[in-house]
Amino acid sequence: MARTVIESASRTVVIGFDQPFCVIGERINPTGRKKLAADLEAGDFATVERDAVEQVACGAMALDVNAGVVYNSNPNPNETEPPLMRTMIELVQSLVDVPLVIDSSVPGALQAGLEVAKGRPLVNSVTGEDERMETVLPLAAKYNVPVVAISNDDTGISEDPDVRFAVAKRIVERAADHGIPAHDIVVDPLVMPVGAMATAGRQVFALVRRLREELGVNTTCGASNVSFGLPNRHGVNAAFLPMAIASGMTSAIMNPTRPVEMEAIRAANLLMNNDANGAAWIGFARVLEAVKAGTPYAEAATAAAAGASRRGGRRRGRA
Amino acid sequence: MARTVIESASRTVVIGFDQPFCVIGERINPTGRKKLAADLEAGDFATVERDAVEQVACGAMALDVNAGVVYNSNPNPNETEPPLMRTMIELVQSLVDVPLVIDSSVPGALQAGLEVAKGRPLVNSVTGEDERMETVLPLAAKYNVPVVAISNDDTGISEDPDVRFAVAKRIVERAADHGIPAHDIVVDPLVMPVGAMATAGRQVFALVRRLREELGVNTTCGASNVSFGLPNRHGVNAAFLPMAIASGMTSAIMNPTRPVEMEAIRAANLLMNNDANGAAWIGFARVLEAVKAGTPYAEAATAAAAGASRRGGRRRGRA
Repeated sequence: MARTVIESASRTVVIGFDQPFCVIGERINPTGRKKLAADLEAGDFATVERDAVEQVACGAMALDVNAGVVYNSNPNPNETEPPLMRTMIELVQSLVDVPLVIDSSVPGALQAGLEVAKGRPLVNSVTGEDERMETVLPLAAKYNVPVVAISNDDTGISEDPDVRFAVAKRIVERAADHGIPAHDIVVDPLVMPVGAMATAGRQVFALVRRLREELGVNTTCGASNVSFGLPNRHGVNAAFLPMAIASGMTSAIMNPTRPVEMEAIRAANLLMNNDANGAAWIGFARVLEAVKAGTPYAEAATAAAAGASRRGGRRRGRA
Repeated sequence: MARTVIESASRTVVIGFDQPFCVIGERINPTGRKKLAADLEAGDFATVERDAVEQVACGAMALDVNAGVVYNSNPNPNETEPPLMRTMIELVQSLVDVPLVIDSSVPGALQAGLEVAKGRPLVNSVTGEDERMETVLPLAAKYNVPVVAISNDDTGISEDPDVRFAVAKRIVERAADHGIPAHDIVVDPLVMPVGAMATAGRQVFALVRRLREELGVNTTCGASNVSFGLPNRHGVNAAFLPMAIASGMTSAIMNPTRPVEMEAIRAANLLMNNDANGAAWIGFARVLEAVKAGTPYAEAATAAAAGASRRGGRRRGRA
């Protein structure tokens, strides 16, 4: 049974079929966030700080860190992104103690992140493109870290799930050549918008099952893509995630500050028998009650998390 | 591929793997509804009338009709239930044009319902108990109607899913002896409360998949049982239903007047590619907008259903 172990300075998270679904917070990413991009170039990290703390309070078990800013002052990301990645990783791990996901298309930025990340981060990502495999896999092997494998290759993204499965298989095999075991590959089978491709949901459910049964790998996805262009997107996402989990999906890179999706995941954990005594569900139901009474979700979740750690502190004090 | 065809006077509903999930309205049932039981004994059918119309407006594709009242004036249901079932079936089919599910533990009431139901109703239910099989299966065969098969037998309800599968298999085999094909058996694998049995969810998902792959049968369940005793039950149900659907479940006997569960089912239909062009999802999103603006769900759904049929009427008028 595939167990992908990721670590922060002092905390271990296991991605696996018998584990709570691993929610990877996606917010620390300047892509499509113009203000954040400008802030980062100006050396202002206030949003990164807030996103780190808030996502963990809301239930993120790991945080994706992407430093993909194209500076106005220097358009070469190979020069600008590595030092920014280093700064962001160091900042985030000074604030929260969860495993990090080093997310970049710039090899130097992956290298910089790996040099400073504590514990055992996850590298995001390798694809089936030859050049990318020969750059990223040696890096993952050198640092003995797991890697996200996205199932597209030099020919692009196939709409045929059999082709996407074959790409994933090829990456797993190439990783093995570099000494990386299958349980350190987390495959992203690529989720298409169901509004544009009606078979997108069924495809992913079948693909996740095959990846689990035939390759024995964990899986992840950019979950919200499935609902692109549709009304009431949270409702689509909140059904997609439990369906993917029932099919064997073990993590997602997503926004944990949305209560609808987080409720669906916590209910799915309970239904998959990955929530001992329903404790997480019962605690989350209290947060939702506060949300119904008007408290914003992030605030209610932060208060609950603080309460839990205060209670823990008192217990330790009495011991 | 199993296709269970049920019919009202003029409408056909197919339960199947490539069909929208079949929502069977559970409300017309005096069990646990003291006031409704008293009303029925007194000959007052106002609640039945409202429940019939409201459930269909809310999206029920078939209606369960249960006449299980124990009269104060006559404690023998073998005498009282058959005429009451007949009256209720005739009333319901005079108001709404959806297939009916004749639900009784009294053989005479099943017979009475079958005599008056138009189209092709579903009989609810046979179990693996010998006496029950030898009573209900000949009746289903005589009227050429499908039947719900509950996977318990003379030894009770097993907590072991392999035993429940074996019971279902035995019912399917016995039905074949009576000339009833597997596609006319809709198996209820029995959903236990996950709060009492932590493996209940996983059990059902695995069992539904086996029933589909090995016996080729459609499945149904009393969905809300899974969340019994837990806080925020609707949240558990709303994850359970999409997970069951992704595993192959094709219908449920449930309360369609709850928007949270209905939203989950409609999203699951979309994600299973059983909602052509997303039309049902887009229509439902408008109903949810009205609900967010303060309109009760049943009222918003009724208005939307009336609007759709008025628009249909105008189109016919112009033709």
